[in-house]
Amino acid sequence: MKHVWHTIATFSALLLLVSCSSVNQRAAIESSHVKQQQLHDGEKVRSLAKSEKKDSSDSILTTKKLRSLPALSEPDSIQPTGQLREIKLEAKISKWELVSGVKADAYTFNATVPGPLIRAKEGDMIRVILKNSLPEETSIHWHGLHVPNKMDGVPAFTQHAIKPGETFTYEFVANHAGTYMYHSHFNSIQQIDKGLYGLLIIDPQNENLKHDREYTFMFGGWNIANEAGGQGKEEMPNMGDDAMTGMSNDQNVSQKKKENIRSMMNKGLQTKSSPNHPHAQMEMPSKPSGDKTGSTVMGMDYNYWTINGKSFPDTQPIEVKNGELVRLRLANISNGVHPMHLHGHDFRVIAKDGHPLTNPQIMNTVTVNPGETYDIDFIADNPGEWVFHCHELHHTTNADIEPGGLMALVKYVK
Amino acid sequence: MKHVWHTIATFSALLLLVSCSSVNQRAAIESSHVKQQQLHDGEKVRSLAKSEKKDSSDSILTTKKLRSLPALSEPDSIQPTGQLREIKLEAKISKWELVSGVKADAYTFNATVPGPLIRAKEGDMIRVILKNSLPEETSIHWHGLHVPNKMDGVPAFTQHAIKPGETFTYEFVANHAGTYMYHSHFNSIQQIDKGLYGLLIIDPQNENLKHDREYTFMFGGWNIANEAGGQGKEEMPNMGDDAMTGMSNDQNVSQKKKENIRSMMNKGLQTKSSPNHPHAQMEMPSKPSGDKTGSTVMGMDYNYWTINGKSFPDTQPIEVKNGELVRLRLANISNGVHPMHLHGHDFRVIAKDGHPLTNPQIMNTVTVNPGETYDIDFIADNPGEWVFHCHELHHTTNADIEPGGLMALVKYVK
Amino acid sequence: MKHVWHTIATFSALLLLVSCSSVNQRAAIESSHVKQQQLHDGEKVRSLAKSEKKDSSDSILTTKKLRSLPALSEPDSIQPTGQLREIKLEAKISKWELVSGVKADAYTFNATVPGPLIRAKEGDMIRVILKNSLPEETSIHWHGLHVPNKMDGVPAFTQHAIKPGETFTYEFVANHAGTYMYHSHFNSIQQIDKGLYGLLIIDPQNENLKHDREYTFMFGGWNIANEAGGQGKEEMPNMGDDAMTGMSNDQNVSQKKKENIRSMMNKGLQTKSSPNHPHAQMEMPSKPSGDKTGSTVMGMDYNYWTINGKSFPDTQPIEVKNGELVRLRLANISNGVHPMHLHGHDFRVIAKDGHPLTNPQIMNTVTVNPGETYDIDFIADNPGEWVFHCHELHHTTNADIEPGGLMALVKYVK
Repeated sequence: MKHVWHTIATFSALLLLVSCSSVNQRAAIESSHVKQQQLHDGEKVRSLAKSEKKDSSDSILTTKKLRSLPALSEPDSIQPTGQLREIKLEAKISKWELVSGVKADAYTFNATVPGPLIRAKEGDMIRVILKNSLPEETSIHWHGLHVPNKMDGVPAFTQHAIKPGETFTYEFVANHAGTYMYHSHFNSIQQIDKGLYGLLIIDPQNENLKHDREYTFMFGGWNIANEAGGQGKEEMPNMGDDAMTGMSNDQNVSQKKKENIRSMMNKGLQTKSSPNHPHAQMEMPSKPSGDKTGSTVMGMDYNYWTINGKSFPDTQPIEVKNGELVRLRLANISNGVHPMHLHGHDFRVIAKDGHPLTNPQIMNTVTVNPGETYDIDFIADNPGEWVFHCHELHHTTNADIEPGGLMALVKYVK
Repeated sequence: MKHVWHTIATFSALLLLVSCSSVNQRAAIESSHVKQQQLHDGEKVRSLAKSEKKDSSDSILTTKKLRSLPALSEPDSIQPTGQLREIKLEAKISKWELVSGVKADAYTFNATVPGPLIRAKEGDMIRVILKNSLPEETSIHWHGLHVPNKMDGVPAFTQHAIKPGETFTYEFVANHAGTYMYHSHFNSIQQIDKGLYGLLIIDPQNENLKHDREYTFMFGGWNIANEAGGQGKEEMPNMGDDAMTGMSNDQNVSQKKKENIRSMMNKGLQTKSSPNHPHAQMEMPSKPSGDKTGSTVMGMDYNYWTINGKSFPDTQPIEVKNGELVRLRLANISNGVHPMHLHGHDFRVIAKDGHPLTNPQIMNTVTVNPGETYDIDFIADNPGEWVFHCHELHHTTNADIEPGGLMALVKYVK
Repeated sequence: MKHVWHTIATFSALLLLVSCSSVNQRAAIESSHVKQQQLHDGEKVRSLAKSEKKDSSDSILTTKKLRSLPALSEPDSIQPTGQLREIKLEAKISKWELVSGVKADAYTFNATVPGPLIRAKEGDMIRVILKNSLPEETSIHWHGLHVPNKMDGVPAFTQHAIKPGETFTYEFVANHAGTYMYHSHFNSIQQIDKGLYGLLIIDPQNENLKHDREYTFMFGGWNIANEAGGQGKEEMPNMGDDAMTGMSNDQNVSQKKKENIRSMMNKGLQTKSSPNHPHAQMEMPSKPSGDKTGSTVMGMDYNYWTINGKSFPDTQPIEVKNGELVRLRLANISNGVHPMHLHGHDFRVIAKDGHPLTNPQIMNTVTVNPGETYDIDFIADNPGEWVFHCHELHHTTNADIEPGGLMALVKYVK
C-alpha cells in the first residue's frame, strides 16, 4: 500500500496548502519563503513569489487548440478525375546505406528504400508497370486499397508470381484518400526485410483540413549480420573530452559501451552543424550466435531499424516553424511493434489505415503495429529540439548501440 | 527532405494537371494522349480517354455503406430466459493435426482444438460439467464474464485445482452479449499452448444488427519442435513446372526455400480444387538450437500458429456472397501480437472484449493482443479470392516456411 | 465450417426452446425437467425451476452503471496555483528485492523502485533537484509533459549528461492533469531496466469525476540472470499435501515444475493470511545460455516483470469495498507489450497518456505498450478475490515459474 498512502498523504498536503494559500493569497505572493513544510522524500511545497508566478503563467500550455481542430472528413462518393498516373518500378538489388558505414544488399524499387512515394488524388487511375530484375519471383500488394482481385498481387491466388525478367502491369482506381503501403507479397519476410516496399498516399478531392507541413515515416527492420556480414567494422578512434556529453578519455573495457553512446550522441550533435557524417567510423560489433540482447528484439535477428530506410542519426529531421500544424504519416512494414513517442508535444491521431477518426484522440505515444498506418498531427507550440522515437528501446539502437534506429529530431527553424 | 520535396512536387504537378484538365475537360476527354508530362521516377500523368474513365467511374468503392451501418447496442437490463444450458467437457490428451502431416499431442476439451463452441443467450444459465482426464490438475477460467467468484476457475484463489480424475461443475448466468473465451488457468502457458481453450459466445436478447454470415477465429501458438519432435519430416518430391507460380525444376540448394514457398502456394491452390491435401509431404526442417529465425517469434519457440486449431492452408476459408454483411469474431489466446489484415476490403471494429463500440472505426488491420477479442464486420463488395492474415509475417509461416499459420482465404461463392 | 454450422445449430435450437418456453412459461416453471433435448457435445437445454431462475435473475450484472458514468473533462485554460513543489532525487545503486529471495543491484531514485511518486496540481511549479550518485552519467526525461526544451532531459540534445557527483535542477509547470512517467534518458535500456524510473501524477484543478480508491501500476522488466547472478538459489523443501491445490508428495523430476506451481500458489494463498513470506525458499533455476523459454520474452533475457518494483505474489493487492468506484493508473516503462486483463469485472478506459477519452470504451483487457499510460476505472460490484494480470503469460512468471510477475489480487474488504 506504500504508494497509495504516499499518494493520499501527498494529495492531502497539497490540498491543505492550496486552500490556505488561496486564503492568504496576498501574503503568499508578498513573501515566497514564509510558508514552508517538509514532506516525504525531501519534498517541499511553498507559494511562489510574484515573479516566478508570472513566468509559470506565461508558459502554461493546454491542449485547447489541438482539441479545437476539426477531424478529417470522408466523402460519400468520389468522382473520377480523368487522370491517369503511370509509374514505372524496377525491382532490383542495390547497395543501400542504412546509416553511415553500414551498407546492405537491399531489394529495392528503383534503387531506393523505401521505393518512390506514389501519390495520387481520389478518383485518379493508377498504373504501375513493374519490371522484375531480382534473381527471384516477386509481386506487389497494394496494402489498404480496394483494387480488383487480379490486381491484389498475391501469388498464387490472384496472379502468377512475376519471374525474373518479366514485367507486370498493375492498374486500379485511387478510391479513398489516406496513407497506404505497397510491398512484395512473395517470399514476403525475406523480400520485405530487405527493403522491397514503399508508401502510397491518396489525397482527398475535397481537403477539409490543411496542414502546414507533412512528413512520412515508413518503419523497416533489418538483419545486417545476415545481410551485410562484417561490414562497418572499422575501429573507433580515441576521442577527446566532450563538454556536452561529459565524455572522458579512459579507454578501459568497462567504459567501452558508455563511450560508444557518448560517441553517438557527440556525433549526433555534429550532424546538426558539421558536414562530416556521424559515426562514419563507429564500431559495429559482430553478433555472437548465442546473443540474447536487444538485437534479437521480437526474437529475431533484427539489429537495425529504419525510418524511410535510414537509422538515427541519419534519419531526416522534422523541421517546423513555431505555430505550424504538422502532419506525420506513419506506416509500419516491419515485423516489430513500434510505440512512437513524441517529446515536448502531444498529438492527435486523425486517421488509422487511411480512415479518419471521427473523434481524434490526443496522446503522446501511438503504437504502430505491423501492417498499420496512422496519421497524426501536432501544433508546433514548444520551440527547441525534440526527439520522436520508438519506446521499445531496443528499436532505438544500431547493432545494440543507442541512440540509433527509430528516432528522428524535431527541429524548430526560422 | 527527399520524400517531402518529392511529395510537394508530385502534389503541385497533380494540382496543376487537375485544374487545367477541369478547364479543358472536353479536350481532355477528346484526345487522351495530348497532355503528357514527364515526372520523377518515370511517372507520367495524362488525362484518360472517355472509355477508360467510364471503367474507373464504375469501379469506385467508398466506405459510405459501411459507415452508414448502425453500431451494436447494449441493453441496460437483462431478463433471465429461464433456460439452462448444460455442457459436458472432458479435458484430455488427444492427437491433433495442425496442418496436414503435422500432429501434436494436444490438451483438448472433447478431443478438439479449440474445444466446443459454447453459445448461449443473455439471461441463460450456463452449467459446464468438467471432467479432468489429463495427467495433471487443471481448471477453466471464463474469460470476460462476470461470474460468481467461486466459478472464476483460478487455483488457488477461487477453487482447488481439479485433480486428474476429478469432476468440477461451473455454473453462472450469461450476463452480457459478446465474444468471450474459456481456457485453463492452471499451469497456463503449458496447458493453453497445448490447446486447452475454446470460444464462448453470448447472443443478445434483442439483436439490433443482423449479419448474413458469421465466422469465429481463435488464434493459438504452438511449439511443435518440443511437442511433436521430428514429425512431418518426409522428403519433398521433385515437382514439375507450375504455370501459376512460375516454378522451375532446378533442385540446387539455393532454390530449396523458394521451392518450398512455391510448393506451398501451388498446393494452396490445389486445396481449392483437388481432394489431395496440401503439402501432405511438405518438408518440416528440424530447428537448430541456436536458431534465431522467425520461428522464435516473441523470443519463444513458437513455430506454428493456428486459427481454430489449424494452420494455413488447412484453415477454413471465409465463404461469402456478393453484397453480404459478414461478421468475424476474433479471439487471441496465444502469447503473440496479431495484427490481422484483410485484403480488398475495409472492415469496422464493432466490439472489443464483447463490448460494443458506440462509434465503430473503419480500418484494414486490427491488432488482437493476447487475451483480447474483437468483433469486426465488412461488406462483401469486391468479388474474388482474398487473404485475411496476420501482418507479423513470422506468424504466417509453418516451421519457417511461408505461407502458413494465421492466414485464411475469403472466397466469393455463388 | 465446423464451428459455423455448430453455431447455427446451437443458435436455432436455442431460439426454438426460448420461443416455446415463452409460450408455456408456467409449465416450464412448474416442472424443470420436462423439456429436455440432447444436443452436440453432450449439451442439454432445459427450462429452469423457479428457484434456480430467481437466483440467476438476482445475479445478472450489466454494464449500465459503468456506461452511465461521466467521462473525464479537460480544461481549456489553467491558472497558476502559485505553489512550488520542490523534490530532491538522488540517483544511486541500491539493493532491491523484486520478490522474496530475489535481489538486484538496482539503479534507483532515493533507494526505491519506482522512485518516489511525484504528484502536483495543474498550475503548480515543479522543481526537481537531481543528484547523480551513480557510477555513470544520467538524466531525467519528463515523459508526457510539455516542459521547456532545456528541461526535457535528453543528452546531448537538450542538456549535458549529468556526470557522477553532479547535481542538476529541473523546473517546469505542471500543465495538464494526467498520469505520466519520469525516467532516465541516457544509456536508457540499461538504466531503465535496472529501475531508474518513477510515476508523475498531475491532478486537475477542477475534478469532475471522484473515485473512491486509486492505485498506480508501473510495469518494469528485469534480467536477474545478468543483474543478480545466482541469487535466490536455495533448495525447495519437501512440502506436505495441500488440500487447496491438490498437491501430492512425490518428488520425481517430472513433478518438479508442477510442484513449483503448486508451491507458488500455496504460498500465494499464505500471503493473504500468514506473515511468513511466500516462496522465501523458492527454487530459482539458473538460465542455460541456449534457453528459449518464456524467460526470453520479446527475445530478450527478461526473466522478471514487476508492478511498482515487485513481482507477484509480492505485488500489493487492490483492496476495494463493495460498491466503490476504483481508478487504476497503468504506466509501462518496460520494453514488453502488456495486455492487462481483469477478472470478474469490466472496466472503462478513461484516459490515455494522461488525456481523457471523450467516449470511454468498456473492456476487460487493455494493452499497455512501452511508453504508454492508461487510466481505467471499474465498479466493485462482484465480491470475492480476483486477479488482474498480463495475458502475455510469460509475463506472469518469475524465472519461468508461474504464477508470478505482472499479477495483482483484487480483494474485497469490509
